[in-house]
Amino acid sequence: MSKSSSYTDRFSSGYRFFDNKTGFMLNYAGASGFDLNRVLKRDKKEITAALDYMKQVEAGKAVNVSEGRKVDHFNLRKGAGLLRSVTLWHSINDAIEQIKNGKVLNEKDKSYTDVIMNGIGGSFLGPLMTLIAKYGNDYNFGCHLPLRIHFLSNTDAWSFDTLMHKLNLSRTIMVNISKSGGTAETAGNMETFNNLLLTRKLKPGKHNITVTTPGSPFDLYSRESGFMHVFHMNNETGGRTSVGSAVGMVPAAFAGLDFESFLQGESYMDKLTRRADLLRNPALTLAVIINDVIIREGHKNQIMLGYSDSLKEMAHYFQQLFMESLGKKKTLQGRIRKEPTGLTIMGGVGTGEQHAFMQQVQEGIRDCFVHFISFRKRSTDFENTKAGSMGRQLLAFLEGTQRALLENGRDFVSLVFEEQNEFNMGMLVALEERVVTFLGGMWGINPFDQPGVQAGKLSADNHNSISKLVVFKLLETESFSGSAFDMSRALGKDKEEAPTIEAILLDIVSNHKVRGAYPDLKGFRCSKKWKGNIFSFSISNV
Amino acid sequence: MSKSSSYTDRFSSGYRFFDNKTGFMLNYAGASGFDLNRVLKRDKKEITAALDYMKQVEAGKAVNVSEGRKVDHFNLRKGAGLLRSVTLWHSINDAIEQIKNGKVLNEKDKSYTDVIMNGIGGSFLGPLMTLIAKYGNDYNFGCHLPLRIHFLSNTDAWSFDTLMHKLNLSRTIMVNISKSGGTAETAGNMETFNNLLLTRKLKPGKHNITVTTPGSPFDLYSRESGFMHVFHMNNETGGRTSVGSAVGMVPAAFAGLDFESFLQGESYMDKLTRRADLLRNPALTLAVIINDVIIREGHKNQIMLGYSDSLKEMAHYFQQLFMESLGKKKTLQGRIRKEPTGLTIMGGVGTGEQHAFMQQVQEGIRDCFVHFISFRKRSTDFENTKAGSMGRQLLAFLEGTQRALLENGRDFVSLVFEEQNEFNMGMLVALEERVVTFLGGMWGINPFDQPGVQAGKLSADNHNSISKLVVFKLLETESFSGSAFDMSRALGKDKEEAPTIEAILLDIVSNHKVRGAYPDLKGFRCSKKWKGNIFSFSISNV
Repeated sequence: MSKSSSYTDRFSSGYRFFDNKTGFMLNYAGASGFDLNRVLKRDKKEITAALDYMKQVEAGKAVNVSEGRKVDHFNLRKGAGLLRSVTLWHSINDAIEQIKNGKVLNEKDKSYTDVIMNGIGGSFLGPLMTLIAKYGNDYNFGCHLPLRIHFLSNTDAWSFDTLMHKLNLSRTIMVNISKSGGTAETAGNMETFNNLLLTRKLKPGKHNITVTTPGSPFDLYSRESGFMHVFHMNNETGGRTSVGSAVGMVPAAFAGLDFESFLQGESYMDKLTRRADLLRNPALTLAVIINDVIIREGHKNQIMLGYSDSLKEMAHYFQQLFMESLGKKKTLQGRIRKEPTGLTIMGGVGTGEQHAFMQQVQEGIRDCFVHFISFRKRSTDFENTKAGSMGRQLLAFLEGTQRALLENGRDFVSLVFEEQNEFNMGMLVALEERVVTFLGGMWGINPFDQPGVQAGKLSADNHNSISKLVVFKLLETESFSGSAFDMSRALGKDKEEAPTIEAILLDIVSNHKVRGAYPDLKGFRCSKKWKGNIFSFSISNV
Repeated sequence: MSKSSSYTDRFSSGYRFFDNKTGFMLNYAGASGFDLNRVLKRDKKEITAALDYMKQVEAGKAVNVSEGRKVDHFNLRKGAGLLRSVTLWHSINDAIEQIKNGKVLNEKDKSYTDVIMNGIGGSFLGPLMTLIAKYGNDYNFGCHLPLRIHFLSNTDAWSFDTLMHKLNLSRTIMVNISKSGGTAETAGNMETFNNLLLTRKLKPGKHNITVTTPGSPFDLYSRESGFMHVFHMNNETGGRTSVGSAVGMVPAAFAGLDFESFLQGESYMDKLTRRADLLRNPALTLAVIINDVIIREGHKNQIMLGYSDSLKEMAHYFQQLFMESLGKKKTLQGRIRKEPTGLTIMGGVGTGEQHAFMQQVQEGIRDCFVHFISFRKRSTDFENTKAGSMGRQLLAFLEGTQRALLENGRDFVSLVFEEQNEFNMGMLVALEERVVTFLGGMWGINPFDQPGVQAGKLSADNHNSISKLVVFKLLETESFSGSAFDMSRALGKDKEEAPTIEAILLDIVSNHKVRGAYPDLKGFRCSKKWKGNIFSFSISNV
């Protein structure tokens, strides 16, 4: 089809993929600049590279070259791997069932009422997305979960404290999800939780479950501490693709999800997207469309809009999947690229976002294309005046928004699944995972590492060590007055550390009397004064 | 300062604004390419235009030219306007207090237990943000709210039904927030709620509160229906800047917020940002920095990262404020611009996002700059091994991430408030509102209308009317087989409507047996078949 053909022409002449068995459709008739013939010719090499790369990944080659390991998330749901995953799921589900039905009791022979999922990044976003897909946002109210479910995914003393005050710790379990156990936020939350348990004469062993890699220091620690359960994920499973492993299974078991269906849905989509024929492989089609937009128009944001409240955390989940995988500065060979790669994802729920950022998407800067996700069948409906029913109104806005995008010359693609269930959520996750892998293959980058996350961690570690030095210096001298530069000199540090030191001194001034922050400085008198360009501090032991 | 000066040099020589009274700081030393001298020279005209425009807005000129109205959100918190707002707040709060303390009872002399905030866009995002800022995400569990608070901000039958099943409707109030009452989602949810009440022999008057403009059809309807309360917002208050009006006040009253402080915080920031001196006006400084980035480097996404779980919905709120205000294709004079304007916002909570999209921000495509928001003082803390305390770990990640951005040559600005409270949330909201207005003035666009939202609504209305025609045709003929093109012809519609018609026919096939969706077609036999490029349908009355 030529570029100028109408949406209706493209719509009815091959710019759609439909899977008869599941009802899944990818409609790319709205990708108006996408010319299949041109792409097949121009991107032949990239398409071959994408398919080859996927083969290498699935064959167990060490494709995560910078970390020297293979990547197994596709294989966890393929053939014997799928059988193993299903078996693991049932064993995890059976173990958690004993907690949910009150057969496993705490040290006071009481059942458990609350579980905290303690994890961050990939250990958080997948469990949250699948939970909300099943129950909606307010899953702890009126959904009859046997244990209330909470999440800690930060190192935030306020929200930690708020949660602790709400819970009866003697009836609470923390599920600590960390591949290595080294994640500072997760480790810190667990440490604090266990300190609180000990203060109340409770046994950490009766209140912790761990998900980690076998043989990791965290695995050993958890087993030595007699934790209720230690479930394993493979070292080959990356965080942002771990939702199909024990990382997703333990929360799913607490939430009562049909996780076997989720795995089957992933597996089914993998099968569809192993096809070498571009037009019969929806993940490859999507990857080629995204790549084409970037070639033709430069980088664009991908707006992901789910027309269902059940998809509230979907865009957030895919934000990590795409951006952490594709935002890279090096080639597979480790050379710095002339231009870094990436694909920025943002999104939310329709119709809500129509009343929020869609004004700009429709009429403002042409910096994005839209990726719709919706379900064909609804579980219930309510008659109304304007549209016939509440659900028909939703469809009208979904279709109306697409029409308006066409009128405004904005591109979109649309994924439609038959209905909201675990199988189709598995299909959706697998589809986008494979899009990401294909793009990685086309661009010749490593979509499986995350070196940029390390830089912030190292700087934070440096900050922590300076913070301890500052406290030590204050305890030693008992008195300090001057700027961060003065403290920097006193510590023998480079002046470039002054901003870090100022942040620490400000933190001390604001928080030295706050319980737990700087217990050794509690009795100090601290003040700051803004001198126009920098702060001057006065800190002394009274 | 020259562009090549170090962060520490800029940090200590004027690239920061500090307000001594409140402790608010804007640090733009991390905006590495920002050269103050160049900008003051190059952008003289734009800076003057920004200040002039703000003066016109605050003087009550009809600055929303396309809608022919003035814009009053700044004046609602200035001088006599502030006094009126505080008075309105206290009267709303007093009225809601009677519900909260059980003095106002339902038709069965029972107190109310649940309230549903029914609104979308600006009637949703502000109330949600301020609620979470106070209580965190799980406000209905253990926060001792007198009534549980729920939100409906979509036309989603599943989430509506899920909520209804959880509630005792006889003890539930719906707060319907709509400037005109014409918002389809809000009107549809209210209609359905009231139908359910009537089915259960309950009186809608005892279960509804309205927030709308005086004299609107919705105002009249609500008063005629004897709703519990009808609170008014001004016609001059735009949805996305309505959080300081009754739109924010009613939810705040149910939530027990100190809303007077919020208004005072807004008012105080307005004062700071009325200054003509760029360097003493943090909103103007920020606007100039954003404009400078766009001039020098082209459009960039603004990543808003709040280092506190209390800011979970902040980026979402500002996404609407910036993108609906600034994403425009026309000039103030109504001419189509050569290039549309806009500023894309995305974000989330630190440290969480460090483990999600920050890999790309650090090392991937250079498509963004980062806008940090944090609080200096915390309410509590917990000692730990790695950082000294949980809160110190958060600071380390905040500072460490900024350091890593500098190392990677990525720009950022940082807002720091003394602590999380309503006053400072008001300051934050007002600051960004004024940044947006200044940018509108600099770019010569109307930041107060949203014409692009209309296009989707009109298309949806068209969809609705076709949907009803299709149902009518099926009832008339009792039998249809063929494609959407065939139905299009049967209806005498243009073939370009075929995609809409296909979506409707698919909806009928999938949902005709679902309660409430297509009651007249419940007895029909419906099926679809994929013919390679389009669907063929068979629908008949059996």
